[in-house]
Amino acid sequence: MNIKSVKSLMRVAQGKEPADLAVVNAALFNVFTAEIIRDCSVCIKDRQIAYVGGNPGGAIGKETIVIDADGRTLIPGLIDGHTHIAWMTAPAEIVNAAIADGTTTIVTEIFEPYPVAGYPGTLELLEAMTDQPVKIYAVAPAMVSISRRCRGIAPEDLKKLLARDDVLGLGESYWQGVFQNPDTHLPAFAATLAAGKTLEGHSAGANEKYLNAYAAAGISSCHEPIKAAEVIDRLRLGMHVMIREGSVRRELEAVSKITQSGIDLRRAVLVSDGISPEAVMADGYMTFIVQKAIDYGFAPADAVRMATLNAAEHFGLDGRIGAIAPGRLADILIIPDLGTIRPEIVISNGRVIAENGKPLVRARPHRFSEACMRTIRLPKALAPDAFAVPVSGPGATAAVNFIELITELVTRRLEYRLPVINGNIAADFQNDICKIAAIDRANTPGEMFCGFIKGFGLKSGAVATSASWDAADIVVIGADDGDMALAVNQIRELQGGIVIAERNEVRAELPLPVFGVISDQPMELVARQTINIQKILKNMGVALSDPLLTLSTMTTAAIPFFRICEEGLYDFKTGETMGLTAEI
Amino acid sequence: MNIKSVKSLMRVAQGKEPADLAVVNAALFNVFTAEIIRDCSVCIKDRQIAYVGGNPGGAIGKETIVIDADGRTLIPGLIDGHTHIAWMTAPAEIVNAAIADGTTTIVTEIFEPYPVAGYPGTLELLEAMTDQPVKIYAVAPAMVSISRRCRGIAPEDLKKLLARDDVLGLGESYWQGVFQNPDTHLPAFAATLAAGKTLEGHSAGANEKYLNAYAAAGISSCHEPIKAAEVIDRLRLGMHVMIREGSVRRELEAVSKITQSGIDLRRAVLVSDGISPEAVMADGYMTFIVQKAIDYGFAPADAVRMATLNAAEHFGLDGRIGAIAPGRLADILIIPDLGTIRPEIVISNGRVIAENGKPLVRARPHRFSEACMRTIRLPKALAPDAFAVPVSGPGATAAVNFIELITELVTRRLEYRLPVINGNIAADFQNDICKIAAIDRANTPGEMFCGFIKGFGLKSGAVATSASWDAADIVVIGADDGDMALAVNQIRELQGGIVIAERNEVRAELPLPVFGVISDQPMELVARQTINIQKILKNMGVALSDPLLTLSTMTTAAIPFFRICEEGLYDFKTGETMGLTAEI
Repeated sequence: MNIKSVKSLMRVAQGKEPADLAVVNAALFNVFTAEIIRDCSVCIKDRQIAYVGGNPGGAIGKETIVIDADGRTLIPGLIDGHTHIAWMTAPAEIVNAAIADGTTTIVTEIFEPYPVAGYPGTLELLEAMTDQPVKIYAVAPAMVSISRRCRGIAPEDLKKLLARDDVLGLGESYWQGVFQNPDTHLPAFAATLAAGKTLEGHSAGANEKYLNAYAAAGISSCHEPIKAAEVIDRLRLGMHVMIREGSVRRELEAVSKITQSGIDLRRAVLVSDGISPEAVMADGYMTFIVQKAIDYGFAPADAVRMATLNAAEHFGLDGRIGAIAPGRLADILIIPDLGTIRPEIVISNGRVIAENGKPLVRARPHRFSEACMRTIRLPKALAPDAFAVPVSGPGATAAVNFIELITELVTRRLEYRLPVINGNIAADFQNDICKIAAIDRANTPGEMFCGFIKGFGLKSGAVATSASWDAADIVVIGADDGDMALAVNQIRELQGGIVIAERNEVRAELPLPVFGVISDQPMELVARQTINIQKILKNMGVALSDPLLTLSTMTTAAIPFFRICEEGLYDFKTGETMGLTAEI
Repeated sequence: MNIKSVKSLMRVAQGKEPADLAVVNAALFNVFTAEIIRDCSVCIKDRQIAYVGGNPGGAIGKETIVIDADGRTLIPGLIDGHTHIAWMTAPAEIVNAAIADGTTTIVTEIFEPYPVAGYPGTLELLEAMTDQPVKIYAVAPAMVSISRRCRGIAPEDLKKLLARDDVLGLGESYWQGVFQNPDTHLPAFAATLAAGKTLEGHSAGANEKYLNAYAAAGISSCHEPIKAAEVIDRLRLGMHVMIREGSVRRELEAVSKITQSGIDLRRAVLVSDGISPEAVMADGYMTFIVQKAIDYGFAPADAVRMATLNAAEHFGLDGRIGAIAPGRLADILIIPDLGTIRPEIVISNGRVIAENGKPLVRARPHRFSEACMRTIRLPKALAPDAFAVPVSGPGATAAVNFIELITELVTRRLEYRLPVINGNIAADFQNDICKIAAIDRANTPGEMFCGFIKGFGLKSGAVATSASWDAADIVVIGADDGDMALAVNQIRELQGGIVIAERNEVRAELPLPVFGVISDQPMELVARQTINIQKILKNMGVALSDPLLTLSTMTTAAIPFFRICEEGLYDFKTGETMGLTAEI
C-alpha cells in the first residue's frame, strides 16, 4: 500500500479530486452479492478503483476520460487460476492473446525451467512475466518428478521464491509423489504455509482416503476432477476446485451436471490448465471458458465468479483483484450482458487495453539470456547403437516391462516377451510396440534409458521432444534406431525443440530454444508448425488426437501408471524405478 | 505446520493409524457446499481433523474414543469475529462462558490496556488469552482516540504485534478518526496490509462516498450497520459485514430484512461486539446469536456459516477453523438439527470440553502482574473544588458548549447559557444539565477537563468509571462537586472501578483493578454488582437503559458527535478539541 496513492483514491472516492478514468451508466455485476447494480459508475485513479456507486459527483472532472457503458454490463477482468505459461510460446505471446480476450490475470506454474536452468532460469522466466499489460502470478515449482535428479525444489530456492509478491504458493504437488516421498515434499509444504501462501494440488483419481490425507497435508486446490461427483468430493473437503477447459483436457461438459446438485459453488473456479497456441487463436482464452460454462448451464453469476472472485479468494488476492470494488486494481470488462462474455472494452490496471476484440497495447517482449537458451547439454551426438537394447542371456525372446497406453495419456505397466535379434531386444511392430528412450539433457547429460512402448502407432521414423514434463529429458519414440538418433541430435543442434526424422532425414522441426520448451517465434508460426507436425505424425501411423502431448507426458509424475525417465521405468503403484527385465 | 503431526493425520486419513477421537453416524453440515451429509464420520488425531467421510475403516481402532452422534447434526465450533474481551471480567471468565456454549474461537479487540499499560500490558492481556480451552485471537489496537495522548499505536509496537500468529490484523479504526488524522492511521494500515493481515472497520453512519474511500484505504470489515440496506451497501464494496447482537447493540431484528433481498451472504458474519457478564449468563454466547438469526428468518445454513466459515475467511483462517474438514482444528458441535443451535457436545482443539451445557474443563486463570493493577496514577486525591468551573468575566450567565445525549449513546454539541454562581458556572438541574469531567489517570495523571452534559438524568450524587473507551481517563458525571471528588478518589483507592457516591458517602462500587477496566472476581459477582449499580442509578434519577455504557462511551472516538476527554470537548464534525466557552 502506497500511502500517497491511497490518499488520492480516498479523495476521488469523496469527489474531491477527479478520477483519471470513469465508466458511467453501467449495469455492474457485483461479485460479492451476485446482483446487477444499474446506473452505476466506476471511478479509477491511476491503476486502482476509487469509487463504485451511483453518485460520483466531483470524481468526474474535466480531465477525466469518461466511457459511457450505455447500460451494458461490467464484470471484473477474468482470471486463469491455473495454467502452464512456459509452454511452446513465450509469455509475451500468451499475454498478447489475453489482452483482447479480457483475461487480465494469469496464475501459472513455472516448473518447466527449474530442472534445466535452475533458480536463475526460473527468475528469468518470472522477469519475462513482469510488467505486462495483464498480471501474471506464479506458483513455485514443487518438482514432483519420477527422476530423483529433478525431485523437489531446493529449500533455499523455495524460500527466495516465496518471499516474492508475484509468487502465490507452491505449485501442483501430484498426490502420488507426495505420498511416496513425503520427506521431500512435506518440508516444502510447511515452508509455504508458514509464508502464508497456498499449496496447489493435483489429485486425479485419488480415492476419498487419499483425498482426505492430501487435504490434511494442507493442499487447498485441485484442478483434476473430470466428473461432477469428483468436483463435489473435493469441494466438501474445503478445496478450491478448478474446473479446466483447456488444451490438455476439457471437463466442462461432464462437470456441468453439478449445476443440478444445487450446492454452493463459492469454491469452484474455472481454469485452462494450459492452453495451446492453436486453441487460443481459434477460440480465445478465459472468455471462451466462461461462456462455455454458461452455455453448459452454469448460472452466469456463478460462471463469472468462478473466473473472478472465487479464484482471487483462493490465492488470498481478493483485496487486489477479482472484483470491481474500491482499492482493487481496475480490471474491468464491458460486455453486452451477463450471459454474453464478449468484451467490448477491456480495462487492465486502469488502462483501456482493448476495444471490440482489438488490442490497443502489446506485450513487453523479453529477450532470454544465453544461459536460458543453452539447456541441451548432451556432450556429443548419439550414434544409432545408443538405442540398442542388448540382452546378456540366451534365448529367442526376452521378458520385458514396457509402457502401454491405455488412453492417450494414461499408461500402465505391461510384461511381455519381445524377440531377440542379434543379441538385442527388438520392437514388435505387429503388436504396435516400438522403442522409447529418455535422455537426460541437463543434469547428467547423456545418461539415458531405452525401453518399449505399446499403442503409440508409429510405423516408421522417430519423433523426439525436449519439452518433456517434470524432467530434464529428451524423449524419443521411434521405429528406427538411426532415426531416433537423428531426431535427438537435431534437437541438440536446435538447442531444444520437437523433431520428426524418417529414413535418415529430418522431416519436420519446431525449434524450442528457450529452456528447450519455448519457441522464440510468434504464436501463429508455432501453431502452424505444431499442426504440421501432428499431421505428419498421423501420416506416419500415429492415430492419437494429440501425439505431441502423449510424447511430452511420457516423463510426467502427474499421470499414472507407468512412465520413463533417464533412470529407468517408474511404477506409480510402488513409487519405484525399475529396469527392463521382467519376471515372466 | 508440524510435519510429524501432518504425517500422523495423513495416516489416520488413510485408515493406517487409529484416531484419538471419532464422531460417527452424524449428519454433517458442510459449510463449503451448504449440504447436510448423512452417515458421516469425523476422525480426529490430537488437535486436528484427519478424515471426514463415510468410511473411516482403520482410523477407528481399539484406542479410539468413539462418539455416536445417532443421526444428529455436526456444525463447526462457533466464532465470534468481533468482541471486546478486556471488559468488566477477565478473559478466563468469558472463556468459561464460551466452553459450554460452543463458542470455540473469539476474535477480540485489545485496545483497552494499551493507553494505560502500554505494550507490556497489552502483551500480558495476550498471555491471559493464550492456552485456553477455546481459541482467542486479537487485533492490534488502532487507537483512534479523541485524546491526542492516546492517538495511534507506536509503529514499533504494531510491528511486534503483527508478527504474532495470534494477532490477525489492526483493530477497528473508526472512520471519522481515519479521515481526520490520516497521517496517524494510514501508515498503520500500510504496515498491517504488508504483514498480510486485515484492517477492521467501523463505519457507523458513513455515507457512500466515505464508505468507498474507507474501502479504498483497505478496510475490509464493518460491524456497525443497523439496517439491512447498510449491510448491503458494505457487502457490495467487498467488506465482510459483521451483524452484531451483543450487549452494546442488537441489530439482528432490523437487519433480518436482508433475507428478503436474495443476495449472496458469503461475506456476512455474526458477532457480539462485546457481551456483558449479565447477558452471557442469561442467554449464552454465539449459540444465542446464531439461533436468533435463524429465528429472525435467516436460513440455518446461512446463519451457521455467518458464525463459522464466513468469519474464518475474513481473517484468512479458513484453513485452520470454521469448517469440519481435514487439517482444520477439531472444533465441532453436535446439535439436534441445523435449526436448533443447542450443543449437546462441544469439541474444541480435539477434546470434548462440554456436554449438554455442562463444561468439562475450566479456563486457565491468569494472575495479572502488579504493573497491570496500578494504572490509576493520580498523584493525589481530588478536592471538590477541582470540579469548579470559574468564569473570568462578569454576568449572571455564561455561554457554554456542552454535550447533549440525543440517544443513549449518540451525542451532539449544544450551546447554551448556564447560570454563574459565586464566579463559577453552575449546573441547571431543571433542564437536566449536570457536570461531567474527564481526568487523565495514566499519561499526564491529574490533567482534567470539566464540562456539562444534558440528558443523563442524575438528580443527586455522582457516578464515576475508570472503564472509559479509547482513552486513559476516569469519567465522572455528577450533581455535586463533593460526590464527584469522592467517586474519583474511591476509584483511585480501588485502582480502578465504577463508583457511586451520594451525600458524601460511597453508595456502591465495582472494583476493576486490572487495567482499571477488568474485575478480578467471578462473572456472577460482577454481574450482580453491575445490576445493583444500574438499579441505584435508576433511583438517583437516571432513566437510561444502560447508564454505565453511556458513561463509558463519553470519551469514545467511535460514536458521534460531541465527546469529552482530559483535553477538552471534541467535535466529530471538525475533528477539533474545544473549550467550554461558546460564541453565543
